[in-house]
Amino acid sequence: MRKDAGIVLAHLAAPVGFLGASSLPTHLVLGFGLAAMTALTVADLRASIGIWLTLCLWCCLAWFVIEGAVRLSAAFVAGRVRRYLLSPACWVDVLSVFLVPIALICGLAPPTAWLFASLWVLKLAQHSSGFAQLGRVFVLEAKPLASVLVLFLIALFLASAAMHVIERDGQPAAFGSLPAALWWAVVTLTTTGYGDEVPRTHLGHLLGALVMICGIATFGLWTGILATGFAAESRRRHFIQTWDLVSKVPFFQTLDPAAFTEITHMLRRVEVPPRTAIVRRGRIGDCMYFIAEGEVEVDVSPMPVRLGPGAFFGELALLGDLIRTANVSTTESSTLLILDLADFRTLMAHHPELARAIDAEGKRRLSENQRRRELYAHGGV
Amino acid sequence: MRKDAGIVLAHLAAPVGFLGASSLPTHLVLGFGLAAMTALTVADLRASIGIWLTLCLWCCLAWFVIEGAVRLSAAFVAGRVRRYLLSPACWVDVLSVFLVPIALICGLAPPTAWLFASLWVLKLAQHSSGFAQLGRVFVLEAKPLASVLVLFLIALFLASAAMHVIERDGQPAAFGSLPAALWWAVVTLTTTGYGDEVPRTHLGHLLGALVMICGIATFGLWTGILATGFAAESRRRHFIQTWDLVSKVPFFQTLDPAAFTEITHMLRRVEVPPRTAIVRRGRIGDCMYFIAEGEVEVDVSPMPVRLGPGAFFGELALLGDLIRTANVSTTESSTLLILDLADFRTLMAHHPELARAIDAEGKRRLSENQRRRELYAHGGV
Amino acid sequence: MRKDAGIVLAHLAAPVGFLGASSLPTHLVLGFGLAAMTALTVADLRASIGIWLTLCLWCCLAWFVIEGAVRLSAAFVAGRVRRYLLSPACWVDVLSVFLVPIALICGLAPPTAWLFASLWVLKLAQHSSGFAQLGRVFVLEAKPLASVLVLFLIALFLASAAMHVIERDGQPAAFGSLPAALWWAVVTLTTTGYGDEVPRTHLGHLLGALVMICGIATFGLWTGILATGFAAESRRRHFIQTWDLVSKVPFFQTLDPAAFTEITHMLRRVEVPPRTAIVRRGRIGDCMYFIAEGEVEVDVSPMPVRLGPGAFFGELALLGDLIRTANVSTTESSTLLILDLADFRTLMAHHPELARAIDAEGKRRLSENQRRRELYAHGGV
Amino acid sequence: MRKDAGIVLAHLAAPVGFLGASSLPTHLVLGFGLAAMTALTVADLRASIGIWLTLCLWCCLAWFVIEGAVRLSAAFVAGRVRRYLLSPACWVDVLSVFLVPIALICGLAPPTAWLFASLWVLKLAQHSSGFAQLGRVFVLEAKPLASVLVLFLIALFLASAAMHVIERDGQPAAFGSLPAALWWAVVTLTTTGYGDEVPRTHLGHLLGALVMICGIATFGLWTGILATGFAAESRRRHFIQTWDLVSKVPFFQTLDPAAFTEITHMLRRVEVPPRTAIVRRGRIGDCMYFIAEGEVEVDVSPMPVRLGPGAFFGELALLGDLIRTANVSTTESSTLLILDLADFRTLMAHHPELARAIDAEGKRRLSENQRRRELYAHGGV
Repeated sequence: MRKDAGIVLAHLAAPVGFLGASSLPTHLVLGFGLAAMTALTVADLRASIGIWLTLCLWCCLAWFVIEGAVRLSAAFVAGRVRRYLLSPACWVDVLSVFLVPIALICGLAPPTAWLFASLWVLKLAQHSSGFAQLGRVFVLEAKPLASVLVLFLIALFLASAAMHVIERDGQPAAFGSLPAALWWAVVTLTTTGYGDEVPRTHLGHLLGALVMICGIATFGLWTGILATGFAAESRRRHFIQTWDLVSKVPFFQTLDPAAFTEITHMLRRVEVPPRTAIVRRGRIGDCMYFIAEGEVEVDVSPMPVRLGPGAFFGELALLGDLIRTANVSTTESSTLLILDLADFRTLMAHHPELARAIDAEGKRRLSENQRRRELYAHGGV
Repeated sequence: MRKDAGIVLAHLAAPVGFLGASSLPTHLVLGFGLAAMTALTVADLRASIGIWLTLCLWCCLAWFVIEGAVRLSAAFVAGRVRRYLLSPACWVDVLSVFLVPIALICGLAPPTAWLFASLWVLKLAQHSSGFAQLGRVFVLEAKPLASVLVLFLIALFLASAAMHVIERDGQPAAFGSLPAALWWAVVTLTTTGYGDEVPRTHLGHLLGALVMICGIATFGLWTGILATGFAAESRRRHFIQTWDLVSKVPFFQTLDPAAFTEITHMLRRVEVPPRTAIVRRGRIGDCMYFIAEGEVEVDVSPMPVRLGPGAFFGELALLGDLIRTANVSTTESSTLLILDLADFRTLMAHHPELARAIDAEGKRRLSENQRRRELYAHGGV
Repeated sequence: MRKDAGIVLAHLAAPVGFLGASSLPTHLVLGFGLAAMTALTVADLRASIGIWLTLCLWCCLAWFVIEGAVRLSAAFVAGRVRRYLLSPACWVDVLSVFLVPIALICGLAPPTAWLFASLWVLKLAQHSSGFAQLGRVFVLEAKPLASVLVLFLIALFLASAAMHVIERDGQPAAFGSLPAALWWAVVTLTTTGYGDEVPRTHLGHLLGALVMICGIATFGLWTGILATGFAAESRRRHFIQTWDLVSKVPFFQTLDPAAFTEITHMLRRVEVPPRTAIVRRGRIGDCMYFIAEGEVEVDVSPMPVRLGPGAFFGELALLGDLIRTANVSTTESSTLLILDLADFRTLMAHHPELARAIDAEGKRRLSENQRRRELYAHGGV
Repeated sequence: MRKDAGIVLAHLAAPVGFLGASSLPTHLVLGFGLAAMTALTVADLRASIGIWLTLCLWCCLAWFVIEGAVRLSAAFVAGRVRRYLLSPACWVDVLSVFLVPIALICGLAPPTAWLFASLWVLKLAQHSSGFAQLGRVFVLEAKPLASVLVLFLIALFLASAAMHVIERDGQPAAFGSLPAALWWAVVTLTTTGYGDEVPRTHLGHLLGALVMICGIATFGLWTGILATGFAAESRRRHFIQTWDLVSKVPFFQTLDPAAFTEITHMLRRVEVPPRTAIVRRGRIGDCMYFIAEGEVEVDVSPMPVRLGPGAFFGELALLGDLIRTANVSTTESSTLLILDLADFRTLMAHHPELARAIDAEGKRRLSENQRRRELYAHGGV
């Protein structure tokens, strides 16, 4: 039996939220631009369709000029010109627009000048909140990460000096100078292993094996630090994002602060577009929903019921046999808070008063449905 | 001294549960089919035993046709044809069965047409619940993973554009066009390092070293995100799976909800086939067992005792010197819940009433054994 | 200022505990044997010192024969012959001793026959408890790990079939058959990247890039699963190991079970050889010690005090300015439980009665020292 | 809207704290020295500017001699000569200073003798506390890491013996001896993959694939162990570092020990140089600050207020709409404790008395500001 949408909603919401729904045209232009710029460096394509590629690139550039102008004027209207001019987003806009023309004016050959268009790829990161998060992990774990880098540098220098001494007589081209040996050490410590410079003596093999194992140990520490930092940052961000929405649900406002904090850690936010089915009758349900913003329609007979901000639904399946008893879909763009089955049970166990409140609300809703159905039956016939 | 089976049961149960005991023939057919398909692409084998390999492949295809038909009719009987037709399992069945014949009809050479049989490998994933779990991790962590991918793309484009400028004069074949440089950047950022394209200048080496270190940093973030996501998902799934079984054990139904939630987090479910020894007298025991479904036989003198659903055993060793005092084996296919020594002690510490209940039950059982032994001795002689 | 030994003791204890102090000669013999076996395969060395290498190998074999005989007779004395014969340790002993002679008798050339001596390396794992732990992680996470392996297999087959089609015309030697393409796919998915088979077309490069990114994603999942599993297993094992020792300390027996469980999670066990300095006056101390087994001598004037099992020391530094006030060393082989500064403070905060007890004991000891010093001064002069 | 400095302060503080602000000249000298030493091994550069490079190296050496002498005399003044002579920092100093001259006296060619200058890179690690932390992780996880290394050794020996047998006839140069096969196995198990030795037979490919997968599994375990160990160590170190500072804040001294422990886990220490803006009016604020040491100036009208050790600021934004209402900057070098928004809310929920105290202090400050403004208005005009 298939499950209902539940968590898949979060899935669909994520990439849209990431790229920014309104910036889809920009991303299309960006894709075309980068493809044209890449094609322009291939001699065959440049000879055959070079003129069309250049045209395409100029169109992309024009788009970015317009986009930047729109953004600047918006900042002007909002009285934030100075703040915008100092932001990284503005720097990206400026680099995207001015570098290629300047390079052309300076007399660079067009295929080379257009290489500066590769900076357009920075526009992908321009409006993303994900980078702030990754950046925080690096910032907060800067000290241990720096220690690992120093370990890496020490291993690099000592290994390359030793390998230079060991192999320089046998392979003067590959290990005859320290810069060449450093290149070997970097390629080996990162376990990239091009194979353009390889030790050939037994002593060299022994040192090489040691360097590879050092590389894996260093790499493991690096990953461990980032994993630890990311787990902490992930919990923190989720809590901040959910708190404000949870405050809007009246049902939670009666909770004592400790329970409020607990439920904030559990809820997961999801944005749903209008007229989207959330729950389907007969499907297996493993979560319940609270409405933070927007409105949903519950398809019960004799006539559908509408639930607004602060209401919840889907709790009947969790209390019973996990089978959904009605269809629910949004009527407008809504923000829902999803409470997972596992968290629901933990929460009910820790806060019996919450369990009673949800139970009472469920019964009230069932009896009201019953009453309405009777009313309808009496009045309708 | 060796330990008793305990956790090894979980081991044995896992792969069977993963592949699905009933689908063993399908997996054998799958293995033969993929091997035959692989062999058919080798010119020597095709010349010598090509006819037998093709025969084998047709047999496999026939098996999959039959299997698909059986599954369709089963869905028809259960009135779920529409749901089956829309499921990914059905798409895999259809692709497995129809692609190769269609390719042959379209006039492709047989060895090429049979390459579509490589899609049969998807059948491995057809009935596995493990993928839902891995999929959820990717879904829930989609946003930070997408940020890492964007970082990867940015590093890719900027590095390849720079390397193209640096190395194109020295190595026009390897770095003369941006697509070639992009290939180098992908190979280096993922630390694969084929070595078919390697920078040769000092500046190129410096940039290459930077790209490798970027690759490791990106990879570390990626691993950290997946580790964080997997830890959360793993806890959640375990809780959901165990909850229903724990509800069936009467001993736990008297617990207050908070204790019930706590013990659900601790128990580990395991399926045991009939007539399997679980506990051996004299072995070291580091867990106790609750019977969720099925029946076990405890081999105490003068006659064995049978314990049904809701009973528990193995607690005497944990309360005493960890040495098992009796043999226990299943009489029918059973589902047991394993409580680890560490968790047992934590639980006893937090819930003294549970400790008393287990202690009382243990004493009751010992005295009953004593009484029965006396009864038997009196009556038997 | 340097810290006192504290945690470094755990360091020194670990490898000794790992290799087993009593098996040092076996490990030396093992090292010599493997080195001789490796040297014997080098033609130059075989020609020059082959006779000595063979002699060395026979000596090693004789040692293992004796060792196996000793172990068998010990098992015989303890009445556990059957259990020993079924244990993996016995299999390793049998393989180590019999395989090489059998190979020689079967007529294999000596350098080839002695290759079976590489199985001696299994003796490293023969008596290690660390493998049980790593094994448990694999067992408990078998299901998700199997899912990752299936993902790996699916990516492997689909990628190699596609690459075979794309590249077989251009590079018939490298991609002309599916087995060759499978080899490329394995080398690429694991990010090993030998570079012996590399795609050359643009489409091949695109597919190759995709395969590398899949490889990193798969690898990240694999690492995440193992990290999650190892964290859980690590906590569990530590708890089990410490529990029994903690039970032996009278000071903890008065604790309620919840506090007992909490402190068991915090303490770290360490074995200290006799006559070893543990605490040095004037050093910085960041932990306190409980004596589980053995005896220590505290070097206070006018005469040293001896503390036996159940006593604790080093708490004065944690309560004061972290500077040690006396030298402490073991008089016999002892087992200590280390309580870290961070855990000490957390524990004192959660259990004020424990804080009071430690404080009272510290004061009692100070006043007793004072009293004894006065006594000594009066009696001595 | 941009956020205020908050966590970025921690960022700026980290590398300075890591390298040690006072050792910046040493690091510059170190950089020049290593660069000159590297350049000296390149034949072209040696021929053209070798004399200048050597001069630069002698200058660096002189600097290190002076630095070592200063450190020794400082130790002499402090009466710690013996402790300094036994410390690793001293060994690094001695090696840095004496090795190169000794090598030159022994008659080594200058470019070779100066290679010992690569040991100068150890000075990077000389005064770093980060290494103690990484070292502790390795020490505490020594046992499982050793198990993984043994697994690695076992895989290494068995794989190379098998590959030697399989491939020695086809490729006598690459796999003809066990040392050569061991080199292949190391390169493959660490997924480095130089490609200088590659199996060519089908059986060799199969074994190679197995070895690569073993390598990834081993690597995953290694990373998992380090990640687990690092998470524990990271929590511990943070707690120790913060405890002493928290004790200095009078506001926290009234807390019961459990709450004190909780808040110590939450606070993050940051060193701020004098005259640095911490909070800017109108920015988004996601943390509040406690002053452990130093002084800040809050820019409120009619005249700024100064806050000393024990005071806190920035709480108004967290209690309200997250917008900062005043500029705050340091007047002298200060140590602040940062409390994150997420932790602030959790803390307020768990400790209502703390919430009331912060609220009362905030109101008191507002009313005082009001009063002062009125006073100023009356008196000023």
